[in-house]
Amino acid sequence: MGRRIADVSAPARLAGPGEGLGQDELALAARNHALPLEAMRHDVTPPGLHYVLTHYDIPYVPDAAAWRLTVGGHVRRPLGLSPARLRAYPAVTTRVTLECAGNGRALLTPRPVSQPWLVGAVGTADWTGVPLRVLLDEAGVRAGAVDVVFTGADHGVERGVEQDYQRSLPLSTATGDDPEVLVAYAMNGAPLPPQHGSPLRLVVPGWYGMAQVKWLRAVTVLDGPFTGFQQSVAYRIRKAPGDTGEPVTRIAPRALLIPPGFPDFMSRTRVVAPGTVALEGRAWSGSAPVTAVEVSTDAGATWRPAELEPDHGHRWAWRRWSGVWSAVPGHHVLSARAHDAAGHTQPSEQPWNLGGFANNLVQRVPVFCSGTA
Amino acid sequence: MGRRIADVSAPARLAGPGEGLGQDELALAARNHALPLEAMRHDVTPPGLHYVLTHYDIPYVPDAAAWRLTVGGHVRRPLGLSPARLRAYPAVTTRVTLECAGNGRALLTPRPVSQPWLVGAVGTADWTGVPLRVLLDEAGVRAGAVDVVFTGADHGVERGVEQDYQRSLPLSTATGDDPEVLVAYAMNGAPLPPQHGSPLRLVVPGWYGMAQVKWLRAVTVLDGPFTGFQQSVAYRIRKAPGDTGEPVTRIAPRALLIPPGFPDFMSRTRVVAPGTVALEGRAWSGSAPVTAVEVSTDAGATWRPAELEPDHGHRWAWRRWSGVWSAVPGHHVLSARAHDAAGHTQPSEQPWNLGGFANNLVQRVPVFCSGTA
Repeated sequence: MGRRIADVSAPARLAGPGEGLGQDELALAARNHALPLEAMRHDVTPPGLHYVLTHYDIPYVPDAAAWRLTVGGHVRRPLGLSPARLRAYPAVTTRVTLECAGNGRALLTPRPVSQPWLVGAVGTADWTGVPLRVLLDEAGVRAGAVDVVFTGADHGVERGVEQDYQRSLPLSTATGDDPEVLVAYAMNGAPLPPQHGSPLRLVVPGWYGMAQVKWLRAVTVLDGPFTGFQQSVAYRIRKAPGDTGEPVTRIAPRALLIPPGFPDFMSRTRVVAPGTVALEGRAWSGSAPVTAVEVSTDAGATWRPAELEPDHGHRWAWRRWSGVWSAVPGHHVLSARAHDAAGHTQPSEQPWNLGGFANNLVQRVPVFCSGTA
Repeated sequence: MGRRIADVSAPARLAGPGEGLGQDELALAARNHALPLEAMRHDVTPPGLHYVLTHYDIPYVPDAAAWRLTVGGHVRRPLGLSPARLRAYPAVTTRVTLECAGNGRALLTPRPVSQPWLVGAVGTADWTGVPLRVLLDEAGVRAGAVDVVFTGADHGVERGVEQDYQRSLPLSTATGDDPEVLVAYAMNGAPLPPQHGSPLRLVVPGWYGMAQVKWLRAVTVLDGPFTGFQQSVAYRIRKAPGDTGEPVTRIAPRALLIPPGFPDFMSRTRVVAPGTVALEGRAWSGSAPVTAVEVSTDAGATWRPAELEPDHGHRWAWRRWSGVWSAVPGHHVLSARAHDAAGHTQPSEQPWNLGGFANNLVQRVPVFCSGTA
């Protein structure tokens, strides 16, 4: 019988051919909330419908006023900031679409055994807080600074490594103004809910969720690169276990359909009546603005342009798109795909990697059109 | 290729021996939120952490003011009520623990293939609204009334039957004052969130979740028994497919532990240090008040009493309990069980039925205590 903490962790693995999900994956799926796709009708996601991924436990913070955010390390004037003190700075509100880097993982073959997202690990909120560079300016970053590390209050074990959740950004990103990184204290105009990082969290527009450190308690400037678990071991694009891999950073483009019609309870197959069916959804990209969305109603064999709404001044939020479909009786598969200004689009073959990250394969929505032809 | 709506539904089935979860079960697990067990530290569950089960889609209601609740059928004066008009009645607020009838289903062997809950399909909220009997009094229930049917705006197909979600209560329950059934418009002092039935829902204290009809648009008094799908086909305790079965009604007693220590990301195994470990959790029963909670730290071999807090005037809400454990290095399984005033307790053998309902088998929390003995 093991006596070391490391023994509670199993090694990373891939599911075997045809292997269903295990209770470990189910435990994660039950804890970590996906966005029900019909909730994409809301420009701003109601907080209880926004996706949530928590590596360990949601910290219990009965007295938010006692919380302190430290800004320290390679700085001249370390800071200790209460939530009230942060609210005294000029507030910035940014509408941001956040997406988990593992979104789409459970659709991969073979399936990396981890949080089993289908496509709903996304959400959009108005985040209010203080630009991180304002705090770093006040602390006075010293010459030679390289990375800025963000430490959350969530604590656990992962592949044998006991840790507080920690991620870093390069100094240039942490102090940049496009995107402007926020230390946020409000979501959609209300204090952060517990599962979204109450009382303080990081928001890095355009980056996948692993960068958006919740329950933020320390900002630490380093004079060298950060090599913590979540930076050097997890969240890297690797084809084989020995690879160094590329870091996961910005969100790849994706368009999702709001499944039309109504569902079957168990299969979630959609049912529509013959005739004109309004299609709508959302599209986003963290690397560059979305420039076009296409839809397919024949499982990706042919594509046609959708109407793409302007961003209404919200560069970092998803954009609404729409189209129409003349449905005829039978079984159909609907899809959408996004293109961005950097020339990226969504693949029709799965972009597989060991961790199951950044899988932006086009969505498939099975629809049954009832009636007779 | 099928042309009938019924063809999108597969028959009910049981998972085979060792069969992992399928993508249909995963799609439900991803949509329907469980309570992360650490959130039991809150007396009242923050809305985004309360469990959610939606049979079909969450209706999109951009203009709640246009909503109308009809009260009709076997009554003398049918009503049509806006949310604003309901707010003009004297308000009642009740703290209620809601639990899905399918909570615990995914732990059954064999596993009924449906929404795969572990044990987190529970939550507690302060619900504010108008007692249903006030509305039924105003409408004037006619002699010979038997059942009262509640119709939600959520629409879908289930086992081949296209339907609006509908459930009924016997007239005596619908007009009773213990428990007092509410037509609720607020949760924890704020308007209902979309996933909890915005703008109006039913709250039936002590009953499982299938009775708590969300997006409530019609209350219909019948002069005979209601035989709709969710009453006569679903939500019945059956041992074999041909059985009539018993209806699922009140919540069976259950105690849950807040898993102590901190988790491993993937296995969710808990880690604690040797020495005194505070144990706490919640206990509830819909049939009668909870009278005692016991804890076990040896996988149910021995039990000892926990401290049970008073209900603080909230008969229909969970009660906090606590205890201490002297942890020694090694692997342990922690459990708790509740007893209620009607003499019910939790079984140590699974209470199996075809639908996987009301499974209140005692929880098992694997814990690893690190260090040397």
